[in-house]
Amino acid sequence: MPLTDTAREAERERIARHVLDLVKERGAEVPWSVAMSESGLTRARFESLFADYDDLFDAVAQTWFAPQLAVMEEVLASSLPPQRKMYEFFCRRFVISRERFRADPVFFNTLCEMGAANFERVRSYVDLADHYLCELIAEAQAEGFFAGLEIDEALSLINQMISNYTLPDALIYLGDKLTEQKLARIVDTMFIGLSGEAGADAAGVNALKVAS
Amino acid sequence: MPLTDTAREAERERIARHVLDLVKERGAEVPWSVAMSESGLTRARFESLFADYDDLFDAVAQTWFAPQLAVMEEVLASSLPPQRKMYEFFCRRFVISRERFRADPVFFNTLCEMGAANFERVRSYVDLADHYLCELIAEAQAEGFFAGLEIDEALSLINQMISNYTLPDALIYLGDKLTEQKLARIVDTMFIGLSGEAGADAAGVNALKVAS
Repeated sequence: MPLTDTAREAERERIARHVLDLVKERGAEVPWSVAMSESGLTRARFESLFADYDDLFDAVAQTWFAPQLAVMEEVLASSLPPQRKMYEFFCRRFVISRERFRADPVFFNTLCEMGAANFERVRSYVDLADHYLCELIAEAQAEGFFAGLEIDEALSLINQMISNYTLPDALIYLGDKLTEQKLARIVDTMFIGLSGEAGADAAGVNALKVAS
Repeated sequence: MPLTDTAREAERERIARHVLDLVKERGAEVPWSVAMSESGLTRARFESLFADYDDLFDAVAQTWFAPQLAVMEEVLASSLPPQRKMYEFFCRRFVISRERFRADPVFFNTLCEMGAANFERVRSYVDLADHYLCELIAEAQAEGFFAGLEIDEALSLINQMISNYTLPDALIYLGDKLTEQKLARIVDTMFIGLSGEAGADAAGVNALKVAS
């Protein structure tokens, strides 16, 4: 009997959660054949749920990223001032990652490696986060911040300055050096300092001369 | 016949350069025994130059990082304004890494992996860069920048915001998204915006409410 769309989605998510448990148990990415045999489903039923390994990986990524997506949408829909909004946009996702990292660093590391090895499959989440960040930048620009910068320029600069709080791997290397207070300082630093004029002093034309 | 200190240092560097060539040729870290047999030296002579593998690795790292060290010392000794000085401090090393990356991405990647696998042996270079950066921060603070921050706080925040221009791996992931112009904007953004007051707006106490 074919599943309704809702039932099919729920069943995909149930299997995706099971695959995440298997990854945790084994400390490694789970191949298609193992995911199928461990699912308890017939091959026909499993293949009616997932077209191929990429499709299964997408379902797993969707399950894993669901809390981050929810947080981004909640922040976007809020009516906070732009600094607060951008801080919450980064901080709430950072806190989710940090909790996951602290709960099980080995599992977290395995998932980072899976994400890196299948980057094309997680790219849509990165793109979506960029899309939302562009909305926040546009709102901030409407209030006079990031003046004189194209949205894409501001996007790239902000992503570069904040990357330790968005790339999950940074937690593995920096751990407790990443804090909410520092993130708040970085966000404010960008709101105060980042504009199309920033760069003129640093890259000025006066040459490097040794003090005599 | 024992070598003079100068001759011994020159001979260590010659072997270190040869080891780097071998790493490039093989695409992998070179074990002690291979480095020895490929050196053309007798075991006794090789062992009089290098106490053990760590000592050999140190000599290789010293050779590899020599241009970065020279650049940092040159910038430190200059009499530029603080923004220009900090920009040159980061930019010149970034340009060295980018040239090396572009010249041979595979070799560059192998060296990044060697550095990560032997992080304790390259830590002294990271520590030295931090030490120099603290000097730049102190000079900038003497002119009123980064007010209200402990040097260590400023150091950590600057390192976090600039990390894509100091971590060589970033070139592998971001490539042409890293530019001198963006680096200059980031440096100026920090000089304009970063202080002990930054963070209050972003982390303010007003709660997240959905716009109605």
